[in-house]
Amino acid sequence: MGLVVVGAAGRMGRSLIETIAAMDGVYLAAALEQPGSAALGCDAGELAGLPRNEVLVTDDAATAFGKAEGVVDFTAPQASLNFAALAAEAGIVHVLGTTGMGPDCDAPLRSAADRACIVKSGNMSLGVNLLSELVEQAARALAAADWDIEVLEMHHRHKVDAPSGTALLLGEAAAAGRGIALADHAVRSRDGQTGARPDQAIGFATLRGGSVVGEHEVLFAGEGEMIELTHRALDRSIFARGAVKAALWGRGKSPGLYSMRDVLGLSSPR
Amino acid sequence: MGLVVVGAAGRMGRSLIETIAAMDGVYLAAALEQPGSAALGCDAGELAGLPRNEVLVTDDAATAFGKAEGVVDFTAPQASLNFAALAAEAGIVHVLGTTGMGPDCDAPLRSAADRACIVKSGNMSLGVNLLSELVEQAARALAAADWDIEVLEMHHRHKVDAPSGTALLLGEAAAAGRGIALADHAVRSRDGQTGARPDQAIGFATLRGGSVVGEHEVLFAGEGEMIELTHRALDRSIFARGAVKAALWGRGKSPGLYSMRDVLGLSSPR
Amino acid sequence: MGLVVVGAAGRMGRSLIETIAAMDGVYLAAALEQPGSAALGCDAGELAGLPRNEVLVTDDAATAFGKAEGVVDFTAPQASLNFAALAAEAGIVHVLGTTGMGPDCDAPLRSAADRACIVKSGNMSLGVNLLSELVEQAARALAAADWDIEVLEMHHRHKVDAPSGTALLLGEAAAAGRGIALADHAVRSRDGQTGARPDQAIGFATLRGGSVVGEHEVLFAGEGEMIELTHRALDRSIFARGAVKAALWGRGKSPGLYSMRDVLGLSSPR
Amino acid sequence: MGLVVVGAAGRMGRSLIETIAAMDGVYLAAALEQPGSAALGCDAGELAGLPRNEVLVTDDAATAFGKAEGVVDFTAPQASLNFAALAAEAGIVHVLGTTGMGPDCDAPLRSAADRACIVKSGNMSLGVNLLSELVEQAARALAAADWDIEVLEMHHRHKVDAPSGTALLLGEAAAAGRGIALADHAVRSRDGQTGARPDQAIGFATLRGGSVVGEHEVLFAGEGEMIELTHRALDRSIFARGAVKAALWGRGKSPGLYSMRDVLGLSSPR
Repeated sequence: MGLVVVGAAGRMGRSLIETIAAMDGVYLAAALEQPGSAALGCDAGELAGLPRNEVLVTDDAATAFGKAEGVVDFTAPQASLNFAALAAEAGIVHVLGTTGMGPDCDAPLRSAADRACIVKSGNMSLGVNLLSELVEQAARALAAADWDIEVLEMHHRHKVDAPSGTALLLGEAAAAGRGIALADHAVRSRDGQTGARPDQAIGFATLRGGSVVGEHEVLFAGEGEMIELTHRALDRSIFARGAVKAALWGRGKSPGLYSMRDVLGLSSPR
Repeated sequence: MGLVVVGAAGRMGRSLIETIAAMDGVYLAAALEQPGSAALGCDAGELAGLPRNEVLVTDDAATAFGKAEGVVDFTAPQASLNFAALAAEAGIVHVLGTTGMGPDCDAPLRSAADRACIVKSGNMSLGVNLLSELVEQAARALAAADWDIEVLEMHHRHKVDAPSGTALLLGEAAAAGRGIALADHAVRSRDGQTGARPDQAIGFATLRGGSVVGEHEVLFAGEGEMIELTHRALDRSIFARGAVKAALWGRGKSPGLYSMRDVLGLSSPR
Repeated sequence: MGLVVVGAAGRMGRSLIETIAAMDGVYLAAALEQPGSAALGCDAGELAGLPRNEVLVTDDAATAFGKAEGVVDFTAPQASLNFAALAAEAGIVHVLGTTGMGPDCDAPLRSAADRACIVKSGNMSLGVNLLSELVEQAARALAAADWDIEVLEMHHRHKVDAPSGTALLLGEAAAAGRGIALADHAVRSRDGQTGARPDQAIGFATLRGGSVVGEHEVLFAGEGEMIELTHRALDRSIFARGAVKAALWGRGKSPGLYSMRDVLGLSSPR
Repeated sequence: MGLVVVGAAGRMGRSLIETIAAMDGVYLAAALEQPGSAALGCDAGELAGLPRNEVLVTDDAATAFGKAEGVVDFTAPQASLNFAALAAEAGIVHVLGTTGMGPDCDAPLRSAADRACIVKSGNMSLGVNLLSELVEQAARALAAADWDIEVLEMHHRHKVDAPSGTALLLGEAAAAGRGIALADHAVRSRDGQTGARPDQAIGFATLRGGSVVGEHEVLFAGEGEMIELTHRALDRSIFARGAVKAALWGRGKSPGLYSMRDVLGLSSPR
């Protein structure tokens, strides 16, 4: 399956080029950057720290999309809407990992999804998406009166905010399983005289240190027993790898707007 | 909800009496032992190390069942078949935690289940049953080529066999999710020159020590990421508590043979 | 070794009576309560939920201490100073687990310790005391520029403050190993835009839920590697058991003020 | 500090070149390969996947050692003995990570160590060496009758033997702390009817899967409490980084044969 990488000179772009080179069943059909980028004309392999692969970075999206079966896109909202339109026109899979796409993006994305398969997720790791689904189910199955939910995360020392976006996403999954709003029940930190744990609370705790890529654990603590559902990212490449897996999954699928839960075959009716 | 405890003088029986006394919504309607038991006529509360509760141990099952809405049963296969028949006659819930019930028990149980609600499970912990369901789903969602499955368990120093029955049950759940037979793919121990990990293997590892009630972890190890699904039993009372929860759940249900997955609301069509 | 339990009718007192009955090499020589206590004259075994042991609760400390080799004391500061004086007079081991003993207690304790062996600790668990020693050594060995220290703790849902006293004690041990003051470097919670991790910080994170007796983990996170030192209390009896172990250790020791680190044979010169 | 990397074209050699380039306080003084190596004359930076650094690979050890303050050596026993002699002559630090050095190497190494500082270890990770020291101390402090020791390890799916060398090294540390011989008490796997845990046993359990670089955990399981001492390698570079740290530590030290425990400042008298 021939794939176009857009934003090819960025950190995720280079990671995608490297991942595509290492995986079976896919090849780099084209590498795009925006007009004016210093990377235009460079060899995409060299950009990614690999041997030359003779794919030169271009800004001609239409031609690139015409000779590929999918595009992998971790760029920015406005650029991604353009790519969605072009991918729909070309009838190819659009894997969309761009973050920060607001509600105003909904209509154009749905329109593109009428003509092509789009797989969209805020976190392209297969593991995190699976964890989120399992957390929602566990929260639904375990009575709130008997089981307390806590979300623990750890990241490297350079991370500047807390809790992580993924920790909040897991908290949302737990709240959805419980049928409550996270905002009403989140306890985001504890220090001093906290009083006993509020009923229905979803607690967060944050660790920072070293070079940890990202660890997330959701605990369900009951009377005399405990369930812990954990994801550990050991390597930043998992996001690129998940995106390529999503492209492979989307090949030949009917047009529509899909999520990583679909890729995992886990989508439950809501 | 009035509950009968059968095998009232045994370890599980006494744990059930204690648990029923501590939980809301249930009371001890009767305590049974077999004819000839030294416990007949004793106060059930005292048997369980509690204050007297004026429920005297009896061997008159028919009367006991007639004044209750459920029976909780961790006894032995032949006794349990009798209790199933009596519970069916009385139209009360039968929670059946007896182990070792072979295929010859199937027909009589199904016949009883035509008339009353039976909840049957080899492990009455809510947490373990939920974990087993999550493991099966994760194994189904994560491609076998990319994710390796391992089952780790730890128990106290007195346990005489390995791996634990629950570890094997979790291995079965993983194999079911994968659509393979556990017997063909289990690697039950590793020592010396093992060679590389076989594709599709489901590995087991066993720890023993101290007073650990029971810990089970199923790992899904992929390229650059890892999912760990863990259950920790901190207290032996969770089995009694799960059984009483099952009785409460079964109250008012249609006749049928149910599992703890049903109690958890997780039963998926197979 | 005959032991006196003071505060015999309290939660820790009853736990001590139970533990002494279960351990080899010790017996209950006397059980004390303060004058006016309703428990005076009661059978100490029955108080602890055990069969009668014919040791009646008394308020006559002098007689009790005269027929024992040690006293185990989890009472209150003023009472403990009195017991220290009496134990010194009788020349018996004083295991002192009372919390909240301020600097004004130092002089009378030292004076008592001139004549008898006192073992004093804020946490009588052998495991926690060992962990604290290991944490201090690890913090000393691992360069602060390369390794970040975090302290994680989890307790049951009823605990009303955070972080736990033991988490702070472990943070103090880490700070001592580093040669810094904990108060200057503790980061007790994180929420929102925290910025990158400060150099030398010792971070705390708190989980609450279920019936967890107490779990503490100190993480040392370096570039590409991580050390985790963890203690898990599975059972409240470990505090009573540690105190009795301390009494056995103190038998025949020279007068002096000892800690649980001495009992563990780990005391390093400071 | 100028460092010579020997075996520069091998996997560890290239990792060392990369690590030296990234660390403060050190630079690559020379890169050696054996006579006849295809890498002779190549740029050492390029060999390691870095930009050119104008250090050309040579086989002239004497000249290289003459212009450096240390040599880092993960080669083979016979080569390492030669490098030890040359480093002794040049009076520079010799960091020796070569494995498989039998007892016949002892005399020549000691002779070299009379004239220069040698730091020798079978595992150059700071974290693993620290863990090993902590394990020994914990095993010494915790009574064998009350605390059971278990060693758990996990590695990637390609590893062909079990338990890992590091797991055995940790088992040795535990046995040393206990004053027993590991060979007499190791339980290397468990399957089937094992019987209860033997007193004094040191158990091993092995997990395999995914891309895990290496995780080791030593558990001390007591009655009602548990201590877990864990090391997780997230990145293969920790071995190169530890070796360079050892070289920096050795600068200016008296001649002698040192271990990573010395580097960590943890060496206790045995």
